[in-house]
Amino acid sequence: MENEFQHLVEIEIETNQVFAGKLLDVRRDRVRLPDGNECCREYIRHQGAAVVIAQRNDGRILFVRQHRYPLRRTFLELPAGKIDPGENILETARRELLEESGFLASDWRHLGVMHPCVGYSNERIEIFFARGLSGGAEQKLDQNEFLDVLSLTLDEALLAIRNGKITDAKTVTGLFWAEKVIVAGW
Amino acid sequence: MENEFQHLVEIEIETNQVFAGKLLDVRRDRVRLPDGNECCREYIRHQGAAVVIAQRNDGRILFVRQHRYPLRRTFLELPAGKIDPGENILETARRELLEESGFLASDWRHLGVMHPCVGYSNERIEIFFARGLSGGAEQKLDQNEFLDVLSLTLDEALLAIRNGKITDAKTVTGLFWAEKVIVAGW
Repeated sequence: MENEFQHLVEIEIETNQVFAGKLLDVRRDRVRLPDGNECCREYIRHQGAAVVIAQRNDGRILFVRQHRYPLRRTFLELPAGKIDPGENILETARRELLEESGFLASDWRHLGVMHPCVGYSNERIEIFFARGLSGGAEQKLDQNEFLDVLSLTLDEALLAIRNGKITDAKTVTGLFWAEKVIVAGW
Repeated sequence: MENEFQHLVEIEIETNQVFAGKLLDVRRDRVRLPDGNECCREYIRHQGAAVVIAQRNDGRILFVRQHRYPLRRTFLELPAGKIDPGENILETARRELLEESGFLASDWRHLGVMHPCVGYSNERIEIFFARGLSGGAEQKLDQNEFLDVLSLTLDEALLAIRNGKITDAKTVTGLFWAEKVIVAGW
């Protein structure tokens, strides 16, 4: 498929790590542009993540509220987290749901993938739909992680997007999928 | 509103620029966690962006296909771009639509905002809906920018999400809004 888009493709000449943090791996690569010129591209190398639409037996969807330091405010988000090295993506989804919400789920479906930040990160987020929830006793948060768990009906969540109370793009993208699965039967 | 979430809030102690690239401003800040401990947070400082759902008079929506070097492949996206220093967000939206697609629009509506990457970037993307299109003659691309312009019906775009052909989160989020505006009358 990519063959028909050769006139757009940029080719790596050389990759350079310009910052190696605890969280961020920042690259500045030399690339060959479609017109033959050379240029630099700066971006984050990311291990990927999974996000979970977890629907309780009463139909409500689980959310977490978390302070996001880069934006200096809290956000209402679907449970999500990074893929550990060598970890299967379903295992990531199960682990993050359990760690963040305390819930287990018996019924898992992989819906698709999204790319949150194509301009300056290679992150992908795998989208899972989980039902058959049990537990909900206790979070097992990472050190330095603080969050509240809550639930919303699908209609409440869609209204929260309309009202600007949900703006996190992985959460809006997840709720797009949730509505299509729950209401439209995708 | 944030007062009720004080138990989640992280406070800046000190901000440090750890990489200053042509594109990326990378920070590593010392922060005070809700439990009183100290910790580091790494993130990108970003000037913000605008994305445009531009609907032609025949109902079709404009898209661009662009190679995204961080992921080494092309993506189907809504037209979008960064806010220039001091620029009004509507002006950004008008400018990016014109530069990327060659189209002007007479009828503009601001729908909301999204945050593509709350974990490691402070980027916000303002969402605009544009109608009354005219022109479409010629792109005015930035140097080192290469992209194709195309159009899809709303149904074709939703099907492309379902089939995994649209995965860019700002584009899925934009199409969530587009469907709500066009079909549900938001």
